[in-house]
Parts: sequence; C-alpha cells; structure tokens
Amino acid sequence: MHFDVNEIIGFGAAVLTTIAFLPQVYKTWKTKDVSSLSLPMLLLFFIGIVLWLIYGFLLHSPSMIFANSITVISSLLLLYFKIKYSKN
Amino acid sequence: MHFDVNEIIGFGAAVLTTIAFLPQVYKTWKTKDVSSLSLPMLLLFFIGIVLWLIYGFLLHSPSMIFANSITVISSLLLLYFKIKYSKN
Repeated sequence: MHFDVNEIIGFGAAVLTTIAFLPQVYKTWKTKDVSSLSLPMLLLFFIGIVLWLIYGFLLHSPSMIFANSITVISSLLLLYFKIKYSKN
Repeated sequence: MHFDVNEIIGFGAAVLTTIAFLPQVYKTWKTKDVSSLSLPMLLLFFIGIVLWLIYGFLLHSPSMIFANSITVISSLLLLYFKIKYSKN
C-alpha cells in the first residue's frame, strides 16, 4: 500500500476535524441543552458538509470522503437534537 | 474565466461551511459566554483546519484554500475567546 505526503496531511486534517465534533455531539446528547446552538448554523453546516462529501468524491480524495462521511452524521445528529429538544 | 462543475460544488460547500461559523463567532464575542464551548474541541478543530488549508494548497483546490483561510481565523478567534473569557 502506497502513502503520499498529500494524503498523510489530508488524513491528519480529516481525523482532527472529525473527532473534534464528537465531544459536542456527546455533550448535547447527554445534557439535552441546545439553547446555545443556532439552528441556521446547523442547517448551513449540514448542507455544506453534504456538498463537501460530493466534492470529495469528484476529486477522488480519500481523506475528504472519510471525514465528511462521519461529519455528515455528527451534524445531522446535532440538527436532530436541536429540533427535538427545542420543542420541549 | 472557466468554471467546472467540481469547483461550483466545492465553492458552494466552502461558502456554506464558512459562513456557518460566523454566527457562532458573533454570538460568543457578543455574549462572552464560553461555558458550552469545549477547549479540546476548539484546539483539535483549529489544528485540523490548518492541516486542511495545507492540503488545499497541495491539491491546488481553490475552494479548500478559500474556505479554510476564513475558517482558520474563525476558529482561532473562538479559541482566543475561550481562553480569554474562561479566566474571568
């Protein structure tokens, strides 16, 4: 298996920005506190990540596909929590 | 000037995920409330965005360079606010 420098840097970027969201998802799930989360921010971010994922496929970038596949789930969960817990 | 479909999708992704952070920066600057922001999350995210910016230059991706140049500033501001306002 061959690794090039570009993909090592891209993979490092992917891992860091992907795992960064996990504490936020856990915290929101645990506390059910969504007051400080902005709904327009979550919507814009989710749609943006869907586009980054498509762009990753178009560029054949393994790092972008990996990172954005996970972040699309994290951001969808945050959006779901925001809508669900805001109703109460 | 020539546009291809890849760069239109990438640019849309870049614009959405970049502007998504601006309300968070504004809110944090205005309220000085950083209690719900996680320092490890902000650190991981900032370092990750620096790597995405380098990766964007290596792939010669205008959308990645544009988006991550702005997000590196947004995330650095949030990190600065977190450290500054946590001391009080």
